[in-house]
Amino acid sequence: MTETPERWIDPERVESAIAALAEHGARGETGVARLVYSPEWVAAQDQVAAWMSEGGLRVERDTVGNVWGYLDGRQGDLPIIATGSHIDSQNPGGRFDGALGVVAGITALAVLRERFGDPERTLAAVSLVEEEASRFPAANFWGSRAIIGRIGTEEPKRLRGYDGVTMVEAMRDAGLDPGLVQDAKRDDIDTFIELHIEQGPFLEHENLPVGIVERITGYRQYLVTLEGAANHAGTTPMDMRRDPMAGAAEIISGVIDTAFRMGRPCVTTVGRAIVTPNERAVIPQQVAFTVDARSPLPEQRETLLARHEALMFEVAERRDLKLSLRVDSDRQPVMCDPALVETIAQAATAAGVPAMTMTSGAVHDAMQMAEIARIAMVFVRSAGGISHSPDEFTTTEDAAAGTEVLTRALHTLAYPS
Amino acid sequence: MTETPERWIDPERVESAIAALAEHGARGETGVARLVYSPEWVAAQDQVAAWMSEGGLRVERDTVGNVWGYLDGRQGDLPIIATGSHIDSQNPGGRFDGALGVVAGITALAVLRERFGDPERTLAAVSLVEEEASRFPAANFWGSRAIIGRIGTEEPKRLRGYDGVTMVEAMRDAGLDPGLVQDAKRDDIDTFIELHIEQGPFLEHENLPVGIVERITGYRQYLVTLEGAANHAGTTPMDMRRDPMAGAAEIISGVIDTAFRMGRPCVTTVGRAIVTPNERAVIPQQVAFTVDARSPLPEQRETLLARHEALMFEVAERRDLKLSLRVDSDRQPVMCDPALVETIAQAATAAGVPAMTMTSGAVHDAMQMAEIARIAMVFVRSAGGISHSPDEFTTTEDAAAGTEVLTRALHTLAYPS
Repeated sequence: MTETPERWIDPERVESAIAALAEHGARGETGVARLVYSPEWVAAQDQVAAWMSEGGLRVERDTVGNVWGYLDGRQGDLPIIATGSHIDSQNPGGRFDGALGVVAGITALAVLRERFGDPERTLAAVSLVEEEASRFPAANFWGSRAIIGRIGTEEPKRLRGYDGVTMVEAMRDAGLDPGLVQDAKRDDIDTFIELHIEQGPFLEHENLPVGIVERITGYRQYLVTLEGAANHAGTTPMDMRRDPMAGAAEIISGVIDTAFRMGRPCVTTVGRAIVTPNERAVIPQQVAFTVDARSPLPEQRETLLARHEALMFEVAERRDLKLSLRVDSDRQPVMCDPALVETIAQAATAAGVPAMTMTSGAVHDAMQMAEIARIAMVFVRSAGGISHSPDEFTTTEDAAAGTEVLTRALHTLAYPS
Repeated sequence: MTETPERWIDPERVESAIAALAEHGARGETGVARLVYSPEWVAAQDQVAAWMSEGGLRVERDTVGNVWGYLDGRQGDLPIIATGSHIDSQNPGGRFDGALGVVAGITALAVLRERFGDPERTLAAVSLVEEEASRFPAANFWGSRAIIGRIGTEEPKRLRGYDGVTMVEAMRDAGLDPGLVQDAKRDDIDTFIELHIEQGPFLEHENLPVGIVERITGYRQYLVTLEGAANHAGTTPMDMRRDPMAGAAEIISGVIDTAFRMGRPCVTTVGRAIVTPNERAVIPQQVAFTVDARSPLPEQRETLLARHEALMFEVAERRDLKLSLRVDSDRQPVMCDPALVETIAQAATAAGVPAMTMTSGAVHDAMQMAEIARIAMVFVRSAGGISHSPDEFTTTEDAAAGTEVLTRALHTLAYPS
């Protein structure tokens, strides 16, 4: 293993595709704002479809706008092996989140066709509609949820974007019929592998270009609202206050400390807080804040959540505050398929790409696809662990290394020796 | 003392004046939004001037719009004895905050004239322009600061209201020349007594209608900004975070607990917090919050502030957060004049009005006037301790009792026996 094996993937091919996609919705030097169903998004999906055709793939668009490129296998009746990620971005985000997985999937299939011709099993590269919920706050995983049949019939009418536009209107603007969303559901996917930037610091810390995801974190997201009694900051003695800020600070400190003390891999974040009336000299009437608690270990997740909720109730009762606890999302950890993880690990070894297995602390389309297919993920090192920001960066070398591993794994799966 | 002395003040007179003033800027059933230099405010000051004339007072308006009503004394060359409060309100506030002191002052002087004719010392009732800073966030104590000569020559140009209008424009709208603000300064006030609602729970708790203020709280108001590193809520382990929310929660909990443990009369409030970017799944980049710390005891104030600041620096350093600490206002406690407090206490006894001495946790125009005059305050019970709200309420009986005490104290001062 002292010699580097020949690489199948030309780094330049990956780099130029990423740069070309980043022009659709470019913001500043390095940022991208490509919101689902926007003109920039339509142009990006058209670009993706064109690359698929150029790569010899058979192109289809489904009823929510996911673009599929097929490399048809000799055994066309078997469930397919799919790869891909999402084409929408944060507002603004970087050029790699999602887009790199789309580029890697198309590149992998085109290279496999060039090198090996038609596969035994049908391969598909997919460019998914919407993962980020950056235009419609309640529409995350729109593309992958359509595929697994988890979009309600009334949802397109109900969802409204930050821009005031409904999902129905946005879909029509992109030439889609919102009445046909259910038709995007499919049951012919055997395997889904998503390549994505890590968005965290572990690969950089370990000095490795690639990670192989064994498990995707479970999480619960709360909106916690504490209601007390607004009053004058100067005239109300401390011992007569019902101060929701005091309660919120105690809970926020407590949940963050709990996750810290329980240790890796669990994490708890309070990213959002809204104070009412938010006046310097007024004890607040109400403080609302989010709690986002995650662990990829099912038992650790349960312990973490139980401790958080016990603290919330205890503090609210002791301070005579009215607690309202809303669970906005809740998901058990998802296990990747062990055989698939092993296939990817062997592909990395064969490619001479140093890699480690790891957990994903972020959630991904693959987590949705796990409901209908066996899944795994290939992670690529993120510079500084930064993402959801124009400062997001991954080197061309790392992007190509991840694509190399993905391509070789797909080869193993679809071209049995 | 078993017989109730004859009352000089007719409660109906106070009640009807409060109700009439509340019509200028009425909001809903009980609220008032009377912002300085607005048409409602102009109408209210005109009403005040009319009542002064009807009461036999000589009316003058100064160059910032304070309205003065004089009951000229036989010794007209001696410094005057003034009483009054402010005519502007919160947005919206109640009908008593400020307004009751204006009504009480005019009523007191009119009744003294009716009963006793001209005084030895000149008495003045004043309706002050602006105390609340509810239109111009940086203009509090505009009227009293003009009187003590504490308005900068450039201030009218610099100040801008929440409505975008500059102080220069607002003054012109009210028929005033902003170039003449300095002319409102005066040096002929010997004594200033302000009657005001308590805005706190102490009188209600003690079941007393009236309080006599011995001391007005000192305070310091900070804007604390903590800067960390924004990152993904799922992928960044707890031990690698620089989370300003964790630091803010620890400091907020700490300063509130410190004031609680130090006990009455000190208070610390965090009324305002701004999180950036304020996204559920993003560790914040920055959390900014206000700290308002008060004590009427000079040594306790210093201890409180020293503990708060030590905690801020300690937490920021330990958590590797960038701390920016801005002091927005800072004021030592103000002592009321002991002889004046005693005069008011004797007036309460003579009137048969149960009263206690107390400190003011709120700040008032009297605090400004203390720079040029000896001061004291008469507090009147607030129902539920509520103020800065349309729910603010004081009974007619209590309002009249406070006015009775004020009137008798002014009689002692201006009509020496």
